Order: sequence, then C-alpha cells, then structure tokens
Amino acid sequence: MTSERQQKIESVLSKRQNDITIVLENVNDPHNISAVMRSCDAIGIQEIYILNTKIPAYEKWASRSSCSAMKWLTIHQFADAKECVDIIKRKHSRILTTSLTTDAVSLYDLDLTQSVAFIFGNEHSGVSEEIRSLADGNFAIPQVGMIRSLNISVACAVTLYEAFRQRTTRGQYKKQALDEKTYQELKTKWTLNHETDQ
Amino acid sequence: MTSERQQKIESVLSKRQNDITIVLENVNDPHNISAVMRSCDAIGIQEIYILNTKIPAYEKWASRSSCSAMKWLTIHQFADAKECVDIIKRKHSRILTTSLTTDAVSLYDLDLTQSVAFIFGNEHSGVSEEIRSLADGNFAIPQVGMIRSLNISVACAVTLYEAFRQRTTRGQYKKQALDEKTYQELKTKWTLNHETDQ
Repeated sequence: MTSERQQKIESVLSKRQNDITIVLENVNDPHNISAVMRSCDAIGIQEIYILNTKIPAYEKWASRSSCSAMKWLTIHQFADAKECVDIIKRKHSRILTTSLTTDAVSLYDLDLTQSVAFIFGNEHSGVSEEIRSLADGNFAIPQVGMIRSLNISVACAVTLYEAFRQRTTRGQYKKQALDEKTYQELKTKWTLNHETDQ
Repeated sequence: MTSERQQKIESVLSKRQNDITIVLENVNDPHNISAVMRSCDAIGIQEIYILNTKIPAYEKWASRSSCSAMKWLTIHQFADAKECVDIIKRKHSRILTTSLTTDAVSLYDLDLTQSVAFIFGNEHSGVSEEIRSLADGNFAIPQVGMIRSLNISVACAVTLYEAFRQRTTRGQYKKQALDEKTYQELKTKWTLNHETDQ
C-alpha cells in the first residue's frame, strides 16, 4: 500500500464520529440504502443499524447493489425493533425519528453536536408506530413546496450534513473521537480492504 | 378546489425564490432528475434548466419517470451550453459549478443568500470543461470519508438546503419574491394542475 493511501485511512479514521448514527427501518430500495451509506461515510459516521422487521435482511440487497461505501462502515443488523433500540440507547443519548407529523420540530432547531441516533423509515409507510413510541423525539426537514416528501436518501443526507456543519463549526472533527482499540481494529481491517481491491 | 388547497398554492407561491436556480448538465438518470426536482420544489426554487448537449432531451426521460414535482416547476431546456449560460447570466449574478477539484471552495463558505445558479454535471463525467470555463466559480461539499463521491441528487439537496437554511435565517421566505405577473400566471396554471388531478 502506498503511504498516501495509508495516510488517507488514518485521516479518515481520525475524523470518524462515535456519537452519531443512523437506523434504517425497513428501507427497501437498494439505491436508497447505497446512497445513505455513502452519505454516512462522507460525514464520518462509522456504525449504522439496519432494522428489518418486515423485509428480508440486508445481505440480500447488498449482493444486488454495488455499495462501495459498505466496506468502510460497521453495519449492525436487527430483526427486532426493541432489541435494536435497546442497543442504541446504550451508546446514544437521543433517538430521533423523522416524519411529517405535527409534533415534529425543525431539523434546524436541533443541537446535533450532541450524541444522537436518527431513525429513517420505509419509503412508503415511514417510521413504524413501535419505533415512534421507543424514540425520544421526532423532527422534520422544513419544506415550502407543493410536494411534501423528500426521497429518503435526500432526507438522510440533508440531516447528516446539518450535523456535519454544526460539528465542524464546533471543531468536532479536529480530534480523534474513536477509542484507540476501535481505531486500530478498523485500521487493520481497512488496510486489508485496500489490499483486496488490488 | 377547496379553499385549503387554494391557500396552499398561495402559500407556496409566496415563498418561491426568484434568484436561485439549478442547471442539470447531461444528467442521465431519471431517478436523479426526479429527486432533484423534488428538492427544488421543497426549498422554493421555481425555474430550473436542463442542458442536454450529449443525451436526448428531457421529455424522453420525463415520460419514463413519474416526477410529481415537475408540474410545479418551470423547466427550461437547452442543447447549447453557451446559450443556456447567457440566459442564466441575465437573471443570476453568480454561476457556480460543483466538482472535487483543488480550486473548489467549501459549500459552507458560500453566501447563498445572494443570487446564484448551481450547475450539476453528468453522473460519470461531471461538469464539462465548456461549462467550467463559462462559470464564475467552483465549490465542493466537504467530505471526510473514504469514498469521494456523493450521489448527484444528494449533492444537490445538501447544496439547496444550505441555501434554504441561510435564506431562512435571513428572513428571505417571509416576503413574496416573485413579481406579481409571474405569481398570477403560476397561480392560474397551478389551479388548473390541481383540477386535472381530480
């Protein structure tokens, strides 16, 4: 491996955030999942959660989509909503769903520099009632158009980039957030990823 | 039409911005075009430009994609880059391309409360050299991941929502930006749109 590539791996790992994650609940379209993963990688999310209570587990989609971002993320899969939320609550202090209900607060009124997990729901039915009842709050991306729905990969990217903007302003990408053990484990794994690319 | 629907049309028109637009240069995938149009509608862009110097004109794609946002936008189509840019320069004081070149400034360093046209290029080849030479500047969405490319509909949405955020902070959605003639013309057209929906 070139030293340039090694430096890139170290630079990316030094910016990975440990207190922000996303959950995809029954998200169906492999293009959406792939785009979401690219956005996660782009803003420095390392761990993501795939919760499939209604549709086949993600592997089946993964084999059909060419998701280049997948190998740079740590993906947790669950089939049970409560089990998934319990695990997330150990690591994150707020779980927020997104849906266009009247109780939703604006994305731009959230402090995203603090620990947070965002849950995005199925393309058609949105976030389930079960997940809504387990979450700490609900937010929406403001919209001033005739159509009131953004593509899920778009909604996710807008949300994550607002977190990125706030965290950049606060200098949260300037110091390593991963603990040293995780950093070293990922460094080893990513170096192997790179070698299998050749 | 219900008065609720009429009120919605008037509310949306009152927030349409007249000094921000996008150009899609040889963007190929109808899913991307459709998602971009939904983002434009969502943040109050009225006029957009489809520049196809290399691929068939947009109608062919439009007929294959179900783009619900299309009927709420004013779409200008061009086959010649210079002609398209000349028209845009009459209405907008800055034309910015997006590509990951070294001269690119960060999206977050741009003042997007001022008149601006964003040009997004083809999924594979990006913005053409011709367009680059005609534009006023180039920007990039910062990325701290292993993969250096965001889906075009994601990049467009992140860009437009940063404009939305800045303009909301400045109160630019609080007063009507469309001139009265355009407002009334669109109101008539949208009312008819609605009636043909029934």
